[in-house]
Amino acid sequence: MSQHDILSLLNAVRDGRLSPEDAITKLKLEPFQDLGYAKVDHHRELRQGVSEVIYGAGKTPEQIIGIAQAMRSHGQERILITRIDAGTAALIQNAVPMRYEAQARFGLIGEMPEPDGDGTVVVACGGTSDLPVAEEAALTAEALGNRVTRLYDVGVSGIHRLLSHMEEIMTARCIVAVAGMEGALPSVIGGLADVPVVAVPTSVGYGASLGGVAALLSMLNSCASGVSVVNIDNGFGAGYLAHIINHLGKKP
Amino acid sequence: MSQHDILSLLNAVRDGRLSPEDAITKLKLEPFQDLGYAKVDHHRELRQGVSEVIYGAGKTPEQIIGIAQAMRSHGQERILITRIDAGTAALIQNAVPMRYEAQARFGLIGEMPEPDGDGTVVVACGGTSDLPVAEEAALTAEALGNRVTRLYDVGVSGIHRLLSHMEEIMTARCIVAVAGMEGALPSVIGGLADVPVVAVPTSVGYGASLGGVAALLSMLNSCASGVSVVNIDNGFGAGYLAHIINHLGKKP
Amino acid sequence: MSQHDILSLLNAVRDGRLSPEDAITKLKLEPFQDLGYAKVDHHRELRQGVSEVIYGAGKTPEQIIGIAQAMRSHGQERILITRIDAGTAALIQNAVPMRYEAQARFGLIGEMPEPDGDGTVVVACGGTSDLPVAEEAALTAEALGNRVTRLYDVGVSGIHRLLSHMEEIMTARCIVAVAGMEGALPSVIGGLADVPVVAVPTSVGYGASLGGVAALLSMLNSCASGVSVVNIDNGFGAGYLAHIINHLGKKP
Amino acid sequence: MSQHDILSLLNAVRDGRLSPEDAITKLKLEPFQDLGYAKVDHHRELRQGVSEVIYGAGKTPEQIIGIAQAMRSHGQERILITRIDAGTAALIQNAVPMRYEAQARFGLIGEMPEPDGDGTVVVACGGTSDLPVAEEAALTAEALGNRVTRLYDVGVSGIHRLLSHMEEIMTARCIVAVAGMEGALPSVIGGLADVPVVAVPTSVGYGASLGGVAALLSMLNSCASGVSVVNIDNGFGAGYLAHIINHLGKKP
Amino acid sequence: MSQHDILSLLNAVRDGRLSPEDAITKLKLEPFQDLGYAKVDHHRELRQGVSEVIYGAGKTPEQIIGIAQAMRSHGQERILITRIDAGTAALIQNAVPMRYEAQARFGLIGEMPEPDGDGTVVVACGGTSDLPVAEEAALTAEALGNRVTRLYDVGVSGIHRLLSHMEEIMTARCIVAVAGMEGALPSVIGGLADVPVVAVPTSVGYGASLGGVAALLSMLNSCASGVSVVNIDNGFGAGYLAHIINHLGKKP
Amino acid sequence: MSQHDILSLLNAVRDGRLSPEDAITKLKLEPFQDLGYAKVDHHRELRQGVSEVIYGAGKTPEQIIGIAQAMRSHGQERILITRIDAGTAALIQNAVPMRYEAQARFGLIGEMPEPDGDGTVVVACGGTSDLPVAEEAALTAEALGNRVTRLYDVGVSGIHRLLSHMEEIMTARCIVAVAGMEGALPSVIGGLADVPVVAVPTSVGYGASLGGVAALLSMLNSCASGVSVVNIDNGFGAGYLAHIINHLGKKP
Amino acid sequence: MSQHDILSLLNAVRDGRLSPEDAITKLKLEPFQDLGYAKVDHHRELRQGVSEVIYGAGKTPEQIIGIAQAMRSHGQERILITRIDAGTAALIQNAVPMRYEAQARFGLIGEMPEPDGDGTVVVACGGTSDLPVAEEAALTAEALGNRVTRLYDVGVSGIHRLLSHMEEIMTARCIVAVAGMEGALPSVIGGLADVPVVAVPTSVGYGASLGGVAALLSMLNSCASGVSVVNIDNGFGAGYLAHIINHLGKKP
Amino acid sequence: MSQHDILSLLNAVRDGRLSPEDAITKLKLEPFQDLGYAKVDHHRELRQGVSEVIYGAGKTPEQIIGIAQAMRSHGQERILITRIDAGTAALIQNAVPMRYEAQARFGLIGEMPEPDGDGTVVVACGGTSDLPVAEEAALTAEALGNRVTRLYDVGVSGIHRLLSHMEEIMTARCIVAVAGMEGALPSVIGGLADVPVVAVPTSVGYGASLGGVAALLSMLNSCASGVSVVNIDNGFGAGYLAHIINHLGKKP
Repeated sequence: MSQHDILSLLNAVRDGRLSPEDAITKLKLEPFQDLGYAKVDHHRELRQGVSEVIYGAGKTPEQIIGIAQAMRSHGQERILITRIDAGTAALIQNAVPMRYEAQARFGLIGEMPEPDGDGTVVVACGGTSDLPVAEEAALTAEALGNRVTRLYDVGVSGIHRLLSHMEEIMTARCIVAVAGMEGALPSVIGGLADVPVVAVPTSVGYGASLGGVAALLSMLNSCASGVSVVNIDNGFGAGYLAHIINHLGKKP
Repeated sequence: MSQHDILSLLNAVRDGRLSPEDAITKLKLEPFQDLGYAKVDHHRELRQGVSEVIYGAGKTPEQIIGIAQAMRSHGQERILITRIDAGTAALIQNAVPMRYEAQARFGLIGEMPEPDGDGTVVVACGGTSDLPVAEEAALTAEALGNRVTRLYDVGVSGIHRLLSHMEEIMTARCIVAVAGMEGALPSVIGGLADVPVVAVPTSVGYGASLGGVAALLSMLNSCASGVSVVNIDNGFGAGYLAHIINHLGKKP
Repeated sequence: MSQHDILSLLNAVRDGRLSPEDAITKLKLEPFQDLGYAKVDHHRELRQGVSEVIYGAGKTPEQIIGIAQAMRSHGQERILITRIDAGTAALIQNAVPMRYEAQARFGLIGEMPEPDGDGTVVVACGGTSDLPVAEEAALTAEALGNRVTRLYDVGVSGIHRLLSHMEEIMTARCIVAVAGMEGALPSVIGGLADVPVVAVPTSVGYGASLGGVAALLSMLNSCASGVSVVNIDNGFGAGYLAHIINHLGKKP
Repeated sequence: MSQHDILSLLNAVRDGRLSPEDAITKLKLEPFQDLGYAKVDHHRELRQGVSEVIYGAGKTPEQIIGIAQAMRSHGQERILITRIDAGTAALIQNAVPMRYEAQARFGLIGEMPEPDGDGTVVVACGGTSDLPVAEEAALTAEALGNRVTRLYDVGVSGIHRLLSHMEEIMTARCIVAVAGMEGALPSVIGGLADVPVVAVPTSVGYGASLGGVAALLSMLNSCASGVSVVNIDNGFGAGYLAHIINHLGKKP
Repeated sequence: MSQHDILSLLNAVRDGRLSPEDAITKLKLEPFQDLGYAKVDHHRELRQGVSEVIYGAGKTPEQIIGIAQAMRSHGQERILITRIDAGTAALIQNAVPMRYEAQARFGLIGEMPEPDGDGTVVVACGGTSDLPVAEEAALTAEALGNRVTRLYDVGVSGIHRLLSHMEEIMTARCIVAVAGMEGALPSVIGGLADVPVVAVPTSVGYGASLGGVAALLSMLNSCASGVSVVNIDNGFGAGYLAHIINHLGKKP
Repeated sequence: MSQHDILSLLNAVRDGRLSPEDAITKLKLEPFQDLGYAKVDHHRELRQGVSEVIYGAGKTPEQIIGIAQAMRSHGQERILITRIDAGTAALIQNAVPMRYEAQARFGLIGEMPEPDGDGTVVVACGGTSDLPVAEEAALTAEALGNRVTRLYDVGVSGIHRLLSHMEEIMTARCIVAVAGMEGALPSVIGGLADVPVVAVPTSVGYGASLGGVAALLSMLNSCASGVSVVNIDNGFGAGYLAHIINHLGKKP
Repeated sequence: MSQHDILSLLNAVRDGRLSPEDAITKLKLEPFQDLGYAKVDHHRELRQGVSEVIYGAGKTPEQIIGIAQAMRSHGQERILITRIDAGTAALIQNAVPMRYEAQARFGLIGEMPEPDGDGTVVVACGGTSDLPVAEEAALTAEALGNRVTRLYDVGVSGIHRLLSHMEEIMTARCIVAVAGMEGALPSVIGGLADVPVVAVPTSVGYGASLGGVAALLSMLNSCASGVSVVNIDNGFGAGYLAHIINHLGKKP
Repeated sequence: MSQHDILSLLNAVRDGRLSPEDAITKLKLEPFQDLGYAKVDHHRELRQGVSEVIYGAGKTPEQIIGIAQAMRSHGQERILITRIDAGTAALIQNAVPMRYEAQARFGLIGEMPEPDGDGTVVVACGGTSDLPVAEEAALTAEALGNRVTRLYDVGVSGIHRLLSHMEEIMTARCIVAVAGMEGALPSVIGGLADVPVVAVPTSVGYGASLGGVAALLSMLNSCASGVSVVNIDNGFGAGYLAHIINHLGKKP
């Protein structure tokens, strides 16, 4: 809760427009709606400037629909739903109109917005197997209002593939670099670019990839500056962070 | 090497001002100076917009002095040197004038610049023991031209300490959140702020902290959006990334 | 076996009411009933003051039914059965009347008792996906005779949700804090409360959550005092410990 | 900050005794004193009912002395200082009178209090090498006002040593069980006792003990109910939690 | 190949009964029969004194049958087959008469032998879920000619269950101690007995049991002497080792 | 991209046969064909001297067919496809004639070539369960033009089996040593041979084999010289490396 | 406490020679002497048939001397002290006559006994660096009354070194196999011998040896039967277990 | 022992020139000299074609000198000694003339030989801190008779540094790629070269580098073909393997 909200509340108390007891009640009840299994936060758009997102993994279709409907009844027009398989998506679509992207396991209620960011977000990935995570990042960024350039299959073991895209890399506002196995892509991109590079390890690989831990460690140890890392397979988190970075120019 | 550099080179070849053989030679020799133990990159300031940084760990004082002098003779006025202990710092100071901050093990050749970023960088940390890493981040950001606000000892087990600084958090352009032990600070800050949060786990702790791995994992699993993570104790990397984010408005 | 039991036995020997050979036999045979695949401990209620619990995982439905019937034939009226899926539950219900809670995979033979504890047990959890573990803890505590207050979806990345429940937190006798992913909830609650906080990591998450190990490590490193930890997903263990703490006032 | 404090503040605003702006200032400045490197929390004794504790590891002697003197100047009479070596202790003793226990690396400013708990705290440990951690737990509990019974060298590989202390185990209010190596002591005690058992793994051992991780895992997997675990070597945390449990009867 | 075999071979060469070239051929071809996918070792019974064992995991039913039939056609009457599920067992039984024990996933071709060991082998386990591994150990030992006493469900959290079997423990020739979760059983038994204790960790448990690694580490760190450890769930290996120990008195 | 290619390009620019802008375009577009989900590298055969390989895991049958057809339309006659199950293989065979080896999950489009290497590649493995990985290595080497000798079921626990094949080992040009469980085979072979030994750990085993990590670590710690290691189960990588080593004599 | 002891006690009670209260006291006080920091177990020699051993690591020289003197005053003539460095040994030797073996960090009070075991114990090790652990095992076995044959520097990467000692291996009663790095020695020996093989991993190695964990895992995964494992560097435990095995023929 | 040696021996027996008993003795005693703490293998040069190497770590200076002198008295002229610090080197130099390279902790007795390999070995490394390991590899290769080209400080975060050395990379016979931190260098080089790439992870780094494990995992997961890996910091092993590869053309 912001400083400003507390100040308004206190002024209301001083002016006698609000009793202290009611002020406490207000502090408790206002910011979210309690569905029993989840507290839907209707103030979040104001506080953080983006649409609410529903993390689908671990929730039943019924819970997801319940949360989405509560949001929509409060006027939320665009809702992102991540990590839902095709079966869950079909159940949701029965209740609410939703676009579904199967590869990225990504759903969008409402229209894709016009890009209004400061520049372009590049999403690069190493191999075909990294596509689901890369697409989750790209679609998340697009759904939040960012222009996205996709550079796929540019892994470091064929370095000329990456170097042929120097122009896109040099002119991006933020780069999401997705890679499994040895996870070296963010290091190479980080050495070429001068904007933030958000590294996303993927669980692609086998044996000593340890479910993505090898790529994760590789990225954390990147000797290129400007690189930071999100969780394994967390395409959403990377796309969201790229969105925040690409809209900093909109802040007062 | 940028697209633009290659184009210039090719134009020179076409115009007969440069032979193809010389072009290859130029590609090889130009961008850095080879000291035998290190290749000093004199083009980096142009390409990435910041001063060269010497990562001091694993280098002898002689190597550091050699690199620094090579840079200075090429006109580099400001040089950051990280991870140097007091003994090494004293040896460097005998050869080159340098400011040394012992707690952060941080050296600066040249003057601290005026801040010219888009906003303020907040550096927050959980406990007194995290100070060396937090200071490395703060000094790095300052030495690259950023205004820095320090919020120290605001760990989540005394949440009111953090909440009393909501104003600084809400108005920052980028927040560096440093924490050891359970590493929860970035999650809480990430839920309060709407700017990028760079999380830095520290090796502070004992037993099941596993040298900072516990805090690292905690941060990678943050359920707050906008949080990304750098290596354990990597205050420099966090300060550098905050600098890039805080200067994006300067990009064309 | 208690001091008191040994003393009685020895007195019986001295008084000639029991031969030494029979005493040894008694030491061996009395305290439990051997079903071949399990030894049912009929003295446990006396020694530890609670009902017997059957840990369902790794047991066949037949074994569970056999144990339950042996207990009931010794007069045990209330039996908790944990970690049983719906199929197993149906098989048991064919043999013995049992209430089954699917989300928590929890069965109860006999009536839910009246609360008789010293105060209230709070069960808090971070997100919707943590509900099964939280419910296992809450139902266990209720079935052992505790009044339980549920605070669900109060994760630290939306700290105001938690702060709006300060009253429940401040007046609890014991708090069970359930969280996956970064596992920071117990640290924040531990800083707010002055009663024991039992932390339960959950396996909710993906990638670097390492099946709950990230949350586990985070909790073990909590810098808040009064926090201790049980195994990943061990809602039963936490509910049971909360019960013991909440009934200490009943001890002589 | 408690509900009650907020209510008082709001009443003061309503009655015109405090302006809203001053209320915010008060929220920020009151609860702790900022020493630059640490925020000393003078309200903590009220909120949590115990003396302030200084965690000595990672702090310089100067910082420790500074914090201790700030506390004493606010009327704090008893201060526990943990994890300080003999050299640091000597420096502190030059500035402030302090009792120092070398084996436990434990300092106490002020008098040891009279026990005022609900019952007795038992501290048990497996071997001679576990003594430092066990003593840290025991001294912490004593310094907070608990009667402590020490059962040392009662490891499970000589089970008769432990069984000869059944009486102390059966009559304790809370048991702290300290063990390194295979860490089995809490499981055995947990099967004998019906009070909370706080398990403390120690880093005693070599090879596959992995610095205490083997004992930690063993304790987390205890099949005895009523057992919870704190960090490796965290004698302080165990003693503190035992204190909270042993004073629950004092709560209103 | 034994010293004795080499000597015979060399004598045959010296006496002209064997050419050097044939001697080399003999060295290569004799000791096993090559089935393409496996080399069946017909000399093993002579060298090691026991029947051949087929480790079923990772082999197709056809391969197992092929190996068994090759053995039987060389006069091997008793063959143990481990780690086979019910489906595989049925396929084998179509080709060769075999007794199958489903819980232990254990097959035996030929008759169970009369016990001819030096004493008794005790197989003890902690809980009902450990039964499959314990039975694999017990059946292996029996099939190799050992009298086996089973002590099941004697976990350390109910120490009186174990103590009531002191007589069996004190008179055994070798004890196999099987336990999952915290893995403390071998430590307690090792402190009571004065014969070799073979510890078998099981993968029973969840969360921080890490698939049996917690129990494994616990056993490796046992502070009881005379304890050694085999791989997780390796009931066969433990039963086999117990057999070797229990037949040492038969050696010349 | 090779030095030679750059030089040709630059000469074309100097001679006016190519504009600088077109040169950059050429650098970008030439070396591969972009299928959207993959960039097929038609220059690779020239640069690295072998056929293109499709790593099948993580690709849909449609993607594999698309890549294979793009290659064949560029004149590629032989294509290896690894890590495909029987179902995928059938789908591919509907579109393109392909030989499929089920045990090795290996497909080959085009004819098996005549061996043209410098010598023989030996592929050795420890047990029957290692066959799939060993066959992947052997088939890969054969498909790239190498004579392969298979030594299967020569694990170190029956050392005479291995020693009977000294001749094959002593005359090989490169040895691929495949082993799961304790992974000792490469160490023993490395001590016998004086050619490169490529060690391949397999995920064969259970419990403390940790999915092949035990064998991997064992091989990395081999005290025999001349041994290097590839990823767990990476038969393809080992066969490919053996091929490169066995064709070094063909290099100018 | 043995069955027999309990029976005697009970008979004494029945006969009126002992009151029940005294019996309990006897149960508590008899079997060990409490030095405060350690309970010395004077019954152990009777129960387990060997001399008491003092594990020196983690004990002060004063504590070791105290324990040793308490033992000697109870008639204990031979005392083994393990894991003591040269400084500690010198301090002990000032108080008690003791033989000290520096490489093995092993002390012996009293005379080395005549071998009285059933056969010979072989101690084999892989390399020169494993000598300290191998010697700890060998000296322990000798001090407990076993004839020991040492086979040092017989690592598997030079397999002929080991094979030249087939006679010693084939005639041993128990073999202790010590190895660091890849830890393959016990597997090879286990395949050659038909007696128990006690495997001891050592912390010798670097990098991926992970302090001995690589060797430990390798040994646990040995595909040779008859192999079991003790903790990393636990030469004492292996020597002790070999002693028990080698004296089984002495049991009634 | 080679096939050929066995054949000779057998022929001697048949011809009556050697008794069978003496043949066995010969098999045992010949191939090495037993110094008690080490068996010096005088046949190794014949069998494996290179000089004997002494691995210095874990050996006392006295042991090293003893081994070296035994070798020299058998006519061995060139001896490599690895992993020795300056103090040990000085002690050796007192006894035997030896060249010592401090950075690589590498000693050489005898003259550096003329290169006689098939081509050139390239040793590349990522940063200044990797120099000690890279130099160990380079010096080892040189001392065994290889021409070595050093490419230092060519890390992937400044990819142009590496690309300017394409000519050396394209014409090498074998490439040793040394890197710490993210360990990406071998992947990039593997994609550029068509010869074997031996990857050496180094322990350079901090935090999540986990002592070189991050780089190791990265290299094992390299998606470039032709890459294999040796142990962390194992410059010797890499240089030795490069030597074997670079001398394959010398084999018959």
